Amino acid sequence: MTLKRKKVSVIGSGFTGATTAFLLAQKELCDVVLVDIPHMENPTKGKALDMLEAGPVLGFDAQITGTASYADTKESDIVIITAGIARKPGMSRDDLVQTNQQIMKDVTTEIVNYSPNAIILVLTNPVDAMTYTVFRTSGFPKERVIGQSGVLDTARFRTFVAQELNVSVKDVTGFVLGGHGDDMVPLIRYSAAGGVPIKSLLKPEQIEGIVERTRKGGAEIVNLLGNGSAYYAPAASLVEMAEAILKDQKRILPSIAYLEGEYGMEGIYLGMPTILGANGIEQIIELELSDDENKALLKSASAVKAVMEVLA
Amino acid sequence: MTLKRKKVSVIGSGFTGATTAFLLAQKELCDVVLVDIPHMENPTKGKALDMLEAGPVLGFDAQITGTASYADTKESDIVIITAGIARKPGMSRDDLVQTNQQIMKDVTTEIVNYSPNAIILVLTNPVDAMTYTVFRTSGFPKERVIGQSGVLDTARFRTFVAQELNVSVKDVTGFVLGGHGDDMVPLIRYSAAGGVPIKSLLKPEQIEGIVERTRKGGAEIVNLLGNGSAYYAPAASLVEMAEAILKDQKRILPSIAYLEGEYGMEGIYLGMPTILGANGIEQIIELELSDDENKALLKSASAVKAVMEVLA
Amino acid sequence: MTLKRKKVSVIGSGFTGATTAFLLAQKELCDVVLVDIPHMENPTKGKALDMLEAGPVLGFDAQITGTASYADTKESDIVIITAGIARKPGMSRDDLVQTNQQIMKDVTTEIVNYSPNAIILVLTNPVDAMTYTVFRTSGFPKERVIGQSGVLDTARFRTFVAQELNVSVKDVTGFVLGGHGDDMVPLIRYSAAGGVPIKSLLKPEQIEGIVERTRKGGAEIVNLLGNGSAYYAPAASLVEMAEAILKDQKRILPSIAYLEGEYGMEGIYLGMPTILGANGIEQIIELELSDDENKALLKSASAVKAVMEVLA
Amino acid sequence: MTLKRKKVSVIGSGFTGATTAFLLAQKELCDVVLVDIPHMENPTKGKALDMLEAGPVLGFDAQITGTASYADTKESDIVIITAGIARKPGMSRDDLVQTNQQIMKDVTTEIVNYSPNAIILVLTNPVDAMTYTVFRTSGFPKERVIGQSGVLDTARFRTFVAQELNVSVKDVTGFVLGGHGDDMVPLIRYSAAGGVPIKSLLKPEQIEGIVERTRKGGAEIVNLLGNGSAYYAPAASLVEMAEAILKDQKRILPSIAYLEGEYGMEGIYLGMPTILGANGIEQIIELELSDDENKALLKSASAVKAVMEVLA
Repeated sequence: MTLKRKKVSVIGSGFTGATTAFLLAQKELCDVVLVDIPHMENPTKGKALDMLEAGPVLGFDAQITGTASYADTKESDIVIITAGIARKPGMSRDDLVQTNQQIMKDVTTEIVNYSPNAIILVLTNPVDAMTYTVFRTSGFPKERVIGQSGVLDTARFRTFVAQELNVSVKDVTGFVLGGHGDDMVPLIRYSAAGGVPIKSLLKPEQIEGIVERTRKGGAEIVNLLGNGSAYYAPAASLVEMAEAILKDQKRILPSIAYLEGEYGMEGIYLGMPTILGANGIEQIIELELSDDENKALLKSASAVKAVMEVLA
Repeated sequence: MTLKRKKVSVIGSGFTGATTAFLLAQKELCDVVLVDIPHMENPTKGKALDMLEAGPVLGFDAQITGTASYADTKESDIVIITAGIARKPGMSRDDLVQTNQQIMKDVTTEIVNYSPNAIILVLTNPVDAMTYTVFRTSGFPKERVIGQSGVLDTARFRTFVAQELNVSVKDVTGFVLGGHGDDMVPLIRYSAAGGVPIKSLLKPEQIEGIVERTRKGGAEIVNLLGNGSAYYAPAASLVEMAEAILKDQKRILPSIAYLEGEYGMEGIYLGMPTILGANGIEQIIELELSDDENKALLKSASAVKAVMEVLA
Repeated sequence: MTLKRKKVSVIGSGFTGATTAFLLAQKELCDVVLVDIPHMENPTKGKALDMLEAGPVLGFDAQITGTASYADTKESDIVIITAGIARKPGMSRDDLVQTNQQIMKDVTTEIVNYSPNAIILVLTNPVDAMTYTVFRTSGFPKERVIGQSGVLDTARFRTFVAQELNVSVKDVTGFVLGGHGDDMVPLIRYSAAGGVPIKSLLKPEQIEGIVERTRKGGAEIVNLLGNGSAYYAPAASLVEMAEAILKDQKRILPSIAYLEGEYGMEGIYLGMPTILGANGIEQIIELELSDDENKALLKSASAVKAVMEVLA
Repeated sequence: MTLKRKKVSVIGSGFTGATTAFLLAQKELCDVVLVDIPHMENPTKGKALDMLEAGPVLGFDAQITGTASYADTKESDIVIITAGIARKPGMSRDDLVQTNQQIMKDVTTEIVNYSPNAIILVLTNPVDAMTYTVFRTSGFPKERVIGQSGVLDTARFRTFVAQELNVSVKDVTGFVLGGHGDDMVPLIRYSAAGGVPIKSLLKPEQIEGIVERTRKGGAEIVNLLGNGSAYYAPAASLVEMAEAILKDQKRILPSIAYLEGEYGMEGIYLGMPTILGANGIEQIIELELSDDENKALLKSASAVKAVMEVLA
């Protein structure tokens, strides 16, 4: 029996990584190690210290360590990868592949070295292919390498539905399959407000507008910011997944999971409804899809495979 | 502009009333006045003081006042009525009508006197008829007199589904219409886990078992306790409704609402999907029902009307 | 590495035990097992189920099990003992000794059998002597057998100071040594509001009144309730101690700790400033006392010893 | 009676302003309007939207509006000013005065125009002089114009003490008077861990080191970040003050308050122990100071006056 604090390392101290670290600490879920490359060591330490100094005011106890040394990540329960080149306005997601693939490989080697039993969450884009890269590099079982996209896509979808209906976001549920963003497959028949399917509450053109806005949700923020990409909602999404694992909550959340036969697919990481608990992905939920939905999922899988072919 | 604290009065200092008061204070939603009859004044003061003394440890600032004087409820934003005779094992809900109706009348007269602008939430059983009594006695507009049953019924339903599936309760949604308990009309097609309809996840007999257990959910607790009835989940349900109103959250929650034409009914309080905000019930959501669902709703309405006929 | 949920068992399903179980679950600190004697098995199951059904509404995931079988407590991280005969109006705390001692012995034997590595928190009165009984029966190292009194006494003290000054309870700190209630040794020079010693803020007679009221704080509630004793603030106090241990927070909280030379005393459990973390009591803080304070502490120790002499 | 949501506007959408807005929304304290200058309108909208999209995941209901139009701040309950030029490495705080003074005047004119009853919180450096500028420009009563420095200084002090003692930050209290940073007057005799004065727990050189590090706390972060200054802890500090006001908590928190005779000073804004509630600064707490403390406070006041002389 041990009651020692849980430990989560966040790789990449940019806005998303830092916000993720902050939320983890604020919720007192674990101690946090924020890691970046050596020439970012001081800014990383500065952010970690600043967060730590918020602790007495916000009322949380958590160690937050900024570092450039992976030795500090030793025996992490979860490692969250946010490192990588960010998408710039106009840049396609595919352009990122090669640079970020090498970063994933380097980072994963370090993670595995210091935390051979960790569960890894990947945010770096293009996230399906990057999660696959981490999976292959790590040699970890598939349930311990998980990508994030659907929680964020769903969060955006829920936000837009709640605004349209002028109701609480707490009561809106959404559901997406497949790849991130443009390739997202929303299952509208599984989206509801207060349990009522949104098809009964919104007109088809309203729903179509919301779906389209959700697909372009990342780009909308990128274009507004002008410089950089979204980080509040992505960080919150990572933290929800981490919390499900740290507390063994058996949450039903969309994850990028490795398929071995599910939905008739093999050898690919794709967004799926999953159950997240202490063991990582504890189950992939298989749904009966309509022909249209199936077609959209295959299209999404093709897009992911096209990126995977770029991988070295 | 005023930033003064909100105020909620809870009538009845029994287990449900006390737990409701405690949760309201713990969440720092408002100051709380806990009211009971004169010969219960000291125990009511004792409970209020005990709760108050938990404040430094749990970290909440709220005044909690125990009293037998309605003058202390003056200018409440919300008044929650839990007073009344509790259902004993073997006692039908209808047996309670006459006693509790008189209690409602007395209590409502006092409430209206001191808080003419309050929103009233009613828990006392048989709750549909008692809410109607409070509505008539108060002379308040219908949106400011609201009964609780569906939040609790749904909470039980969600608990049982989550247990059956071994998933987080956070991801299970449910939906009921109509009267409380035995007369509840569950809309299974609107119940989901992680957005996936439970019809895809559970066998018909499992669902039937869960529905049946939910209907008898109050009795199950009564029978186990041997003496008294449920109070944790009922209090939590009241607090969720109160929070939606106090924070103007526009939550979509089932409420016992007064019908004037909705679902083809008139002059009756019945469990409905509603939007709760700063004005109380801001909308009753009208759904297209199947024939079976409509039949069940009419049956539920008949049961409520039968009770209403007992009212003086 | 394991991420499985923590587990806390609460012995005694009376108001304090049940409220403790509820708060632990509500804060998602652990799964909870609520235990009582066989003839209370059904009510215990009823309370546990009622709490569980509040989970979807309050938004917590925790198993809550009501049981009469200690086998269900297996491998608890913490066991909290609230079992025992409650103090009735007019009954001295010493009258409880013999009955409760036997209960402690029986309960502890079961706990040790199923959770040999647990940390035990004791609330049962007379708490100093009962903690000692559990310590001796368990054979556990002293840091894993801890009594509660000072968190509660301090909470009451802080409540009264905050009321007198009309300030937030969050900013009032207090400090007590020694036995519970009548024997409490408040260190007024260590009590402050917003960091300002209360001696600068309140008149001596105000402080004396608050100290006196704190000493009699348990009796005040007992007298008001007429039947039964305080449970909200005691439960909150137990939960704060349990949280400090479960999250390894290194909180500085007053605990009833076993002395082996500290403050010149030996072989006695007495209220002390301690550091609570994953290992239980990780340190007893030794303060320099004034002559008056030392005298009061010795008097308090004598009172505890007098009770200990009653122990079989 | 109205239950409409409270509204807080945050002027300046840089890191501190944005983090402040996020924490306010996350805690469901109010709706938030984030304001910046016209050429920052899109990034401000982008940040606000990103935050809003975190709502469904973190479970909060709050409107978050990004804007360049002060009309959107209409009828704010609180306005928080974070706008201004940030301190760069090597830049003295005094260099900022003239630029930031003009920004304060422009911003305040707009605030007063749209929210004549608001309470204004000022963070912009040099904060004592900037708060004075806002006070004069606004024509508001002194209790409604408040500067932040002491909550942050104290938070840093508490963090360092907790680290040195290896205890929870929750149990460390601190106390500062006077100006921000270099001019801070820590009252060590009022700083405690678990109620125990830190003078009994730490050596004089340890305390001196902590005081010195606290004084330079802002610069430490600036130097580590290399580009920009602290924002997590400053934002948390602003939110604690805003929460005290929005919930009328009567918190005892250090604020930059306008003195009219207190501590023998007149016509100056200086860091003071205050009580914050629905009316803003409801009381300035006057302490008896030692000669040394009084000397340090006067020195601090001189430094503030020197900056005030630079004001146009």
